[in-house]
Amino acid sequence: MIRFKNGNVLTMDGGCAVESKEVWVEGDRICFVGKPTDEQLKAAVFEREFDLDGDLLMPALKNAHTHSAMTFLRSYADDLPLQQWLFDRVFPLEAKLTGEDVYWFARLAILEYLTSGVSASFDMYFKLDDYVKANIDSGFRTVMCHAVSGPGERVKEVEECYLKFNGMHPLIGLQLGFHAEYTASYELMENLGGLAEKYKAPVSMHSSETDSEVADCIKRWGKTPTQLFDSLGLYNYGGSAYHCVHVTEEDERILAERGVWVVTNPCSNAKLISGTAPIAEMDRRGIRLAIGTDGPASNNALDMFREMYLLSVLQKLKEADATAMQPERILEMACRGSALAMGLDDCDCIAQGKQADLIVIDMKRPNMQPVHNIPKNLIYSGSKENVRMTMVAGKVRYLDGEFFVGEDAERIYAKCNEHTQELIKR
Amino acid sequence: MIRFKNGNVLTMDGGCAVESKEVWVEGDRICFVGKPTDEQLKAAVFEREFDLDGDLLMPALKNAHTHSAMTFLRSYADDLPLQQWLFDRVFPLEAKLTGEDVYWFARLAILEYLTSGVSASFDMYFKLDDYVKANIDSGFRTVMCHAVSGPGERVKEVEECYLKFNGMHPLIGLQLGFHAEYTASYELMENLGGLAEKYKAPVSMHSSETDSEVADCIKRWGKTPTQLFDSLGLYNYGGSAYHCVHVTEEDERILAERGVWVVTNPCSNAKLISGTAPIAEMDRRGIRLAIGTDGPASNNALDMFREMYLLSVLQKLKEADATAMQPERILEMACRGSALAMGLDDCDCIAQGKQADLIVIDMKRPNMQPVHNIPKNLIYSGSKENVRMTMVAGKVRYLDGEFFVGEDAERIYAKCNEHTQELIKR
Repeated sequence: MIRFKNGNVLTMDGGCAVESKEVWVEGDRICFVGKPTDEQLKAAVFEREFDLDGDLLMPALKNAHTHSAMTFLRSYADDLPLQQWLFDRVFPLEAKLTGEDVYWFARLAILEYLTSGVSASFDMYFKLDDYVKANIDSGFRTVMCHAVSGPGERVKEVEECYLKFNGMHPLIGLQLGFHAEYTASYELMENLGGLAEKYKAPVSMHSSETDSEVADCIKRWGKTPTQLFDSLGLYNYGGSAYHCVHVTEEDERILAERGVWVVTNPCSNAKLISGTAPIAEMDRRGIRLAIGTDGPASNNALDMFREMYLLSVLQKLKEADATAMQPERILEMACRGSALAMGLDDCDCIAQGKQADLIVIDMKRPNMQPVHNIPKNLIYSGSKENVRMTMVAGKVRYLDGEFFVGEDAERIYAKCNEHTQELIKR
Repeated sequence: MIRFKNGNVLTMDGGCAVESKEVWVEGDRICFVGKPTDEQLKAAVFEREFDLDGDLLMPALKNAHTHSAMTFLRSYADDLPLQQWLFDRVFPLEAKLTGEDVYWFARLAILEYLTSGVSASFDMYFKLDDYVKANIDSGFRTVMCHAVSGPGERVKEVEECYLKFNGMHPLIGLQLGFHAEYTASYELMENLGGLAEKYKAPVSMHSSETDSEVADCIKRWGKTPTQLFDSLGLYNYGGSAYHCVHVTEEDERILAERGVWVVTNPCSNAKLISGTAPIAEMDRRGIRLAIGTDGPASNNALDMFREMYLLSVLQKLKEADATAMQPERILEMACRGSALAMGLDDCDCIAQGKQADLIVIDMKRPNMQPVHNIPKNLIYSGSKENVRMTMVAGKVRYLDGEFFVGEDAERIYAKCNEHTQELIKR
């Protein structure tokens, strides 16, 4: 067993109270939360003890929308108009990607997630076998959202992957999904609706990221993306809608009613000037909310602390209300909401029987002092600087700046630089 | 001498090129930049050599507007309407501050600056003797802006401090200044205009932070703050105007013509919903630009990386142009502009004879890989996680997470918590 003692614990098991407790981990699960009796302590055998010495133990953050392997495009395609960015820079390189490229680029992203206290990603990309291998080799948790586009018969591929990747490994999952309305045929979306019904499963996709996307969709089908997806039965069993920057009141009604998770990506939406999603408003309407970084080509960091901070201040600006979007709610979105959006129902909080996806926050750094209010410190002055440890499924993968992912970080950097240079020349 | 070798150097001495060079430091100054000959190497005696091993050496960032000692209010007064924040929370505690409180609270802020690669602050607060002692004891550089308010005769105090603090210590300076139009009498501002003329010196102050501040000023004096200050001769020798969120075209003309530094504080302006300053527009109009964090009560971090990032994305959103506010320009504002706004003409870049205010950026972290473009990496995915070293005036004050400030960090945290609790009870 692994023992965390002498710390403060933010369980997020119903609220944001910080309490002095112990947490014990057996295998990949939390087996004890509380103040142990002398008898419990006598009976316990600990292979490792973490003396938190006043540091904070809390559930890991989860990144509910990303394209991990796009690390190769970081700082390669910035400060360009969207069309030039996509058509001159992103697409030509993506067309030449090999499975091995994706493997190394995803391993790099996983390192970055760990530095930011992230234990799981909801990822949309290609070369799924190589991507999955990168996660298993690193001991990282991921749920894929299938990024299919184009003609209707590609639904077969989605079904094959759904059956292949779910249940293959405890760290791996896949949700039914497709890229977006503007890259999918009507038939594909219709067929995915059938698949959702067949498996009684949620469907996830990009939705309503830019105003032109919504306007084009209305032109094509007489409906907003949300209304179109709903009319095709895609949301009958829930799902995640990535972005939702531009939504109507009717869209919000559908999202709330269907229990769809809106996954917001404030950094990417700002940098690509897509806008600011009405998250505080959606929250008032009871819509389920989660947070993601989007990919490193558009963000460019994979840093959930920056994401939570930006969400907070952009919503205050949008609402013209300095009290909008309280830190406790944002933490709940990033720890619990993002886990539940991925279907990771046992990764959402610290409680007995839950998966041990945990982080330790260093309180002995100047940005966390003095200690008036820990949730506010985390959102308003916290940063990845404060992440001392990231544990995924009971295994320490990051501790005090060092990675434990079965591969040397410097080798991953070297491989990524090498593969990036080759890809540009290819 | 101290030698930095095997690194990449971003000198910022005219542009943002990154080159393979050595930098040598003698005492508090840079004594060599370039590729040394064998003879130069033979003649040199190094007391310390930093093998950068591919990491980046660059000028330190400077924080051009802050209230350092307000660390005690971090996470104490958030998510409240402005009036309640100020009158119920901030003012009652500030009224009870002792010099010893300010000393410890400022020491905490200095630790945080160092973690974020900051070598100097442009600070506005009270209890200047204690504040100055905190900086000298820590080996940190500061220029104060006098925060006087109220009646006209207080100009004497400003003059006394101007004469006392300038020249007292190489790390300490003070600029003529006052708090803001809304807390100053007309006579005080008039008298400060006289002082500016007497010493041919710049005058600095808060200006045009909120729309109501500007509206009230127009009601009182028939002029915007910028126009009022200019009419009183306050800008005859330049100065710094903190915030400038709400400015008119005529204001911008004055600021450009007088060479006034506009110091922007994007995080504080967003969190307190003051708005987004038109920085990209001011840049096109040739206004001098610098960046600051504002105080930890309103920010709540003292993190120039977060400040640079937020400036970048908020300007893109404001301009509705993803290409707005290039990373190179933001770096120039934070390293050079902020130094020059404080009058630190020899702290602005890496060149022979300049002050050795330097930082080392860790390139071997996942968020900096792969390496396509270093300035873009610094702004779009960089963070204080990447600050390996901060040197102030030739002395290493922060290295690999450790502080070298003549006092144990944990003692500073303990003192700050103790003084904060006492202050609340007092």
